[in-house]
Amino acid sequence: MALMPFTDSMFLLVESREHPMHVGGLQLFRKPDGAGPDYLRGLREDLIKNEDIPQLFRRHPARPVNTLGYVAWAQDENVDLDYHFRHSALPQPGRVRELLELTSRWHSTLLDRHRPLWEIHLVEGLRDGRFAMYSKIHHALLDGVAALRHLQSTLSDDPDDHDCPPPWGTPRPPRAKSAGGTGSLLRTARSSVEQLAGVAPAALKLAKEAFREHTLTLPMQAPKTMFNIPIGGARRFAAQSWPLSRVREIASATSTSRNDVVLAMCAGALRDYLIEQRALPDAPLVAMVPVSMRGKSDGTATGNQIGAVLANLATDKKDPAARLSTIHHSMREAKRIFKELTPIQALLLSGINVAQLGVSTVPGVVSNTRPPFNLVISNVPGPRKQMYWNGAHLDGIYPASVLLDGQALNITLTSNGDNLDFGITGCRRSVPHLQRLLLHLDTALAELEHAVK
Amino acid sequence: MALMPFTDSMFLLVESREHPMHVGGLQLFRKPDGAGPDYLRGLREDLIKNEDIPQLFRRHPARPVNTLGYVAWAQDENVDLDYHFRHSALPQPGRVRELLELTSRWHSTLLDRHRPLWEIHLVEGLRDGRFAMYSKIHHALLDGVAALRHLQSTLSDDPDDHDCPPPWGTPRPPRAKSAGGTGSLLRTARSSVEQLAGVAPAALKLAKEAFREHTLTLPMQAPKTMFNIPIGGARRFAAQSWPLSRVREIASATSTSRNDVVLAMCAGALRDYLIEQRALPDAPLVAMVPVSMRGKSDGTATGNQIGAVLANLATDKKDPAARLSTIHHSMREAKRIFKELTPIQALLLSGINVAQLGVSTVPGVVSNTRPPFNLVISNVPGPRKQMYWNGAHLDGIYPASVLLDGQALNITLTSNGDNLDFGITGCRRSVPHLQRLLLHLDTALAELEHAVK
Repeated sequence: MALMPFTDSMFLLVESREHPMHVGGLQLFRKPDGAGPDYLRGLREDLIKNEDIPQLFRRHPARPVNTLGYVAWAQDENVDLDYHFRHSALPQPGRVRELLELTSRWHSTLLDRHRPLWEIHLVEGLRDGRFAMYSKIHHALLDGVAALRHLQSTLSDDPDDHDCPPPWGTPRPPRAKSAGGTGSLLRTARSSVEQLAGVAPAALKLAKEAFREHTLTLPMQAPKTMFNIPIGGARRFAAQSWPLSRVREIASATSTSRNDVVLAMCAGALRDYLIEQRALPDAPLVAMVPVSMRGKSDGTATGNQIGAVLANLATDKKDPAARLSTIHHSMREAKRIFKELTPIQALLLSGINVAQLGVSTVPGVVSNTRPPFNLVISNVPGPRKQMYWNGAHLDGIYPASVLLDGQALNITLTSNGDNLDFGITGCRRSVPHLQRLLLHLDTALAELEHAVK
Repeated sequence: MALMPFTDSMFLLVESREHPMHVGGLQLFRKPDGAGPDYLRGLREDLIKNEDIPQLFRRHPARPVNTLGYVAWAQDENVDLDYHFRHSALPQPGRVRELLELTSRWHSTLLDRHRPLWEIHLVEGLRDGRFAMYSKIHHALLDGVAALRHLQSTLSDDPDDHDCPPPWGTPRPPRAKSAGGTGSLLRTARSSVEQLAGVAPAALKLAKEAFREHTLTLPMQAPKTMFNIPIGGARRFAAQSWPLSRVREIASATSTSRNDVVLAMCAGALRDYLIEQRALPDAPLVAMVPVSMRGKSDGTATGNQIGAVLANLATDKKDPAARLSTIHHSMREAKRIFKELTPIQALLLSGINVAQLGVSTVPGVVSNTRPPFNLVISNVPGPRKQMYWNGAHLDGIYPASVLLDGQALNITLTSNGDNLDFGITGCRRSVPHLQRLLLHLDTALAELEHAVK
């Protein structure tokens, strides 16, 4: 039995039915040529033979030894892969809508603490012939970015490579022909686990400053919105891809960054959604955005640092071009409130809120205080090349995030070859008709294109 | 918060990953005429509107207040039906085999204690066009017989009755045109909950006598078999129906009871299975069989009493007719070791073993002592008429049972109109190729028919 650092145990301690603490990822694949109706069953049967399971995928909390919670990890020496790796199917009519409905359900349920804290579902029954994989792993094992990277490290850029490990498998060392591809992702995934060690004290300190001692001045004041309330346990998940080229062209035409354009897409979609819900506040929404902080490197091997900025989403402005312009200036001039954090630290921090700090045990805290920001919009770098998994073409990889009290909506996107893949996670109770946000994102992108023509 | 009687909490206390303490039922339905591809989705959407949820289906354990376990029930005032009532589908090729595989998976996982302790899955994708419903409820709420009866009480014998409640709904009072049908089942389901109250002390006392103080003489000695070992957490479930008329004809021809013939079917199947596994013991297997004890009624309203007998399954005999004869005499002459129990008490008792008594914490107890019996074979009375659920024809209703250390296999069957529906629950690790038992049951029935011709 290994002692569990507080960085792990805090995610177990704060977890409740209303606040599941796992991260998820939905991957969409095209079957290889010649795949028959039994393709997915065969693939699963092949993969499940791989019992080379790293320690991380054997971990679950040891039995509680006191009421203060779990304090140690146990290793499962007899992992029941049949339990963790499941074969599922979609009900009729097998649209992406049914897939998202099923993903929402899986993303809502708590992982079984008697077993290693992960589940993977292979899904068939999409009427377009594709298949999907939904993966779920507890935040106490891996945070969202590390989980995404771990998944990517099991892929290959070679469509003829049929030796890709299962998602719980040990990522392979980088192959000679793709140096800098999966290899660097693998290294990142490994080091992210180590980075976790220093997070909690820093995050707690910063958060205390921000929320309790008021020594940290927030550069702008976020309005109270329908997203900033206590949440329930059920989730809704929506996902869609857009061509990276469309975002790039708008950025070029306006001398803004791709991230600015992505934020403008989100801003447009949020504005339309809130108008539809008759809930658009007068003041503009504020997003917390983790950003890269290049140029700070001191020459050590740790490389880039990431910070987080608060972005003015200009949802009070009707004109899409004016919104993009405001966002661009906000991002440029934003005071970098959390500096010099590692990527993982920054992302963890972006999730910090009153619930994690235990402040939510004081009744009324969430509903009476104005939020420091309205939602997190996170843009995680993904694979640059087209990737494959045992010959299956990766069409999309959509992140499903953790929600917390006061943060009922999260938008996380990742680049994937020539696409941007958006994953939207919402509290089922507080954010109705979440799927509408996809439509509004599409409209917002078209309006931006029209505005810069 | 209601105080939880020990009869409830003991099932929560002994539950572990290896010993899930829920009972299950798999129902197979034919769609009504004219049902389209969206039939099941529509049915679910209609039913989920029924938020008239009885207290029983709102219960979950309150947060642990000390390490001795849960001591109180909490009532969920905001039951998330979307979570509890799920729409699922079978992977290709959609045979009954895939349905049983999915049922096995669902029957293996622990219920989430943060929520009311039940789940129901509506399943489409059977290639023969039928649909299925798997229900799962914690033994702390209802035992297997009561759960089965509750399910039945939501059915109707009228194919045109489209007002059947959902499985979590309040059973309707008996309709005038079907007096004695669903009504009596309903009353039984209700009273079984009350009967639970007196069970645990009686069961514990008897079991202590049987296993510890050796004051209870067992009429025969069961051999040690592959079924009588500590179990794992994963389950395999198999199910099939046979016409009641085939069993009845054998019983008539041999002047035996239907239950004798059913036991002879099981005996033949177990013998063939154990031979295949090279694990047939020299001594005959012993089954614990709950039986009706008519004629003991003292005129009070409680009616029939049920006891349990140990049956010699004669698995050492090669000739099917000789096996049936031995079983028949064994059942007639069997000493009724547990008398004057209510049906629920008898069934609960039949599951009593060292695990429930906490004796399994003494290392080696299960593996070194000879079992009092090798398995439970339980024949639960079901509906006599053909039943319907909102116009859908009930083809089968198959019980899935709880397993315990030392009892890795359970056969429970129920009568259903003109059929006998068998549900076989096995420990996935200890009972390989469980499906083979269905084939062997079929062979055993044919051999009995051949033998009595």
